[in-house]
Amino acid sequence: MAVAKSKGYDVYPISFNYHQRHSIELEGAKKIASYYGVKKHLIIETNMEAIGGSALTDEKIEVPEGDVNRHSVPPTYVPARNLIFLSYAMGYAEVLGATHVYIGVNSVDYSGYPDCRPEFIEKFQALADYATTATAVKGQKITIETPLQDLSKKDIVLLGTKLGAPFQFTHSCYKGGEKACGICDSCKLRLRGFAEAGVEDPIAYETREV
Amino acid sequence: MAVAKSKGYDVYPISFNYHQRHSIELEGAKKIASYYGVKKHLIIETNMEAIGGSALTDEKIEVPEGDVNRHSVPPTYVPARNLIFLSYAMGYAEVLGATHVYIGVNSVDYSGYPDCRPEFIEKFQALADYATTATAVKGQKITIETPLQDLSKKDIVLLGTKLGAPFQFTHSCYKGGEKACGICDSCKLRLRGFAEAGVEDPIAYETREV
Repeated sequence: MAVAKSKGYDVYPISFNYHQRHSIELEGAKKIASYYGVKKHLIIETNMEAIGGSALTDEKIEVPEGDVNRHSVPPTYVPARNLIFLSYAMGYAEVLGATHVYIGVNSVDYSGYPDCRPEFIEKFQALADYATTATAVKGQKITIETPLQDLSKKDIVLLGTKLGAPFQFTHSCYKGGEKACGICDSCKLRLRGFAEAGVEDPIAYETREV
Repeated sequence: MAVAKSKGYDVYPISFNYHQRHSIELEGAKKIASYYGVKKHLIIETNMEAIGGSALTDEKIEVPEGDVNRHSVPPTYVPARNLIFLSYAMGYAEVLGATHVYIGVNSVDYSGYPDCRPEFIEKFQALADYATTATAVKGQKITIETPLQDLSKKDIVLLGTKLGAPFQFTHSCYKGGEKACGICDSCKLRLRGFAEAGVEDPIAYETREV
């Protein structure tokens, strides 16, 4: 959102209550939307946990402790999540008359999710041109923007710092407690990024070791 | 579903409660799922009406009376609906280990929706290969099947009749009353299809003229 704002766009954030373990990330999203003074913050509600298959939506599947060097897709993968999120965003972009859809996918220092990869985004863009009345019939272009795609976590922290992104309201931990756990993949990657950038991470952790 | 069953597949139907005007189509879907004795009927709940832009989810936008020869996309178009539906289906297919996703899109005798066209389905298939761990990482194929794509409504009625599809539980009307209105696009196209096929449409109509 900080990147889109820095380019002068009016932003219309979408968040998803997909019955993930932690509603705390939605509370963070609301604070960020409010920080940027958006006209509207759309929250899509959906029972994605009914599909199953992920530690993030199924209490019976355990969130693993950090192993950011593993080579398989971890159980925190939510089947087709970014596909579903981008699909809603395309519908909303069409209704708003928006020209760009921003998504914060990243394929450096990440957990191997297929739907964060550049080839996924390229194929989604190719589909987007045929998916809505705006794009397929009226010839408007809706461009998927992924400003964080090729940045290391360190560079994301540096970029956010430069743009004044409110890191204090952001949430990365898979566990979703009041304080970040500090030991899941997501916490470890975040802490390493801040450490490498030489920036203090303003959120609270249970355990804080890189 | 009748086509998938006729090919010997176990079927796992998904329906969507997207706050469309008529929950009556969901009641029909439940009867059809029960008719075929499925193991599970997944119903995804989502507040798609929050996106806006369609007569099917916004009471303030009127459903037009039938004009099946118009050339523009009608207000009953729901932005990105089939994109969203197929995206959920991909996630569910991955969790089930399913090899095929069936969708009843049709581009003959239809209302001009972009997300019913063959090029939309082709692009979605190209994306699907990169969208999930199953397809992008494990090399499994999930094929989007559109058995009704090129059939006229007449031929759909003939096919369904041959396969024993329970037309009595199906719902097509945009208005969503107990009885079909008989005058919206969808009713007119359905009635014309049954008439041309020489098959009696078993559902009840307010007005029944082709």
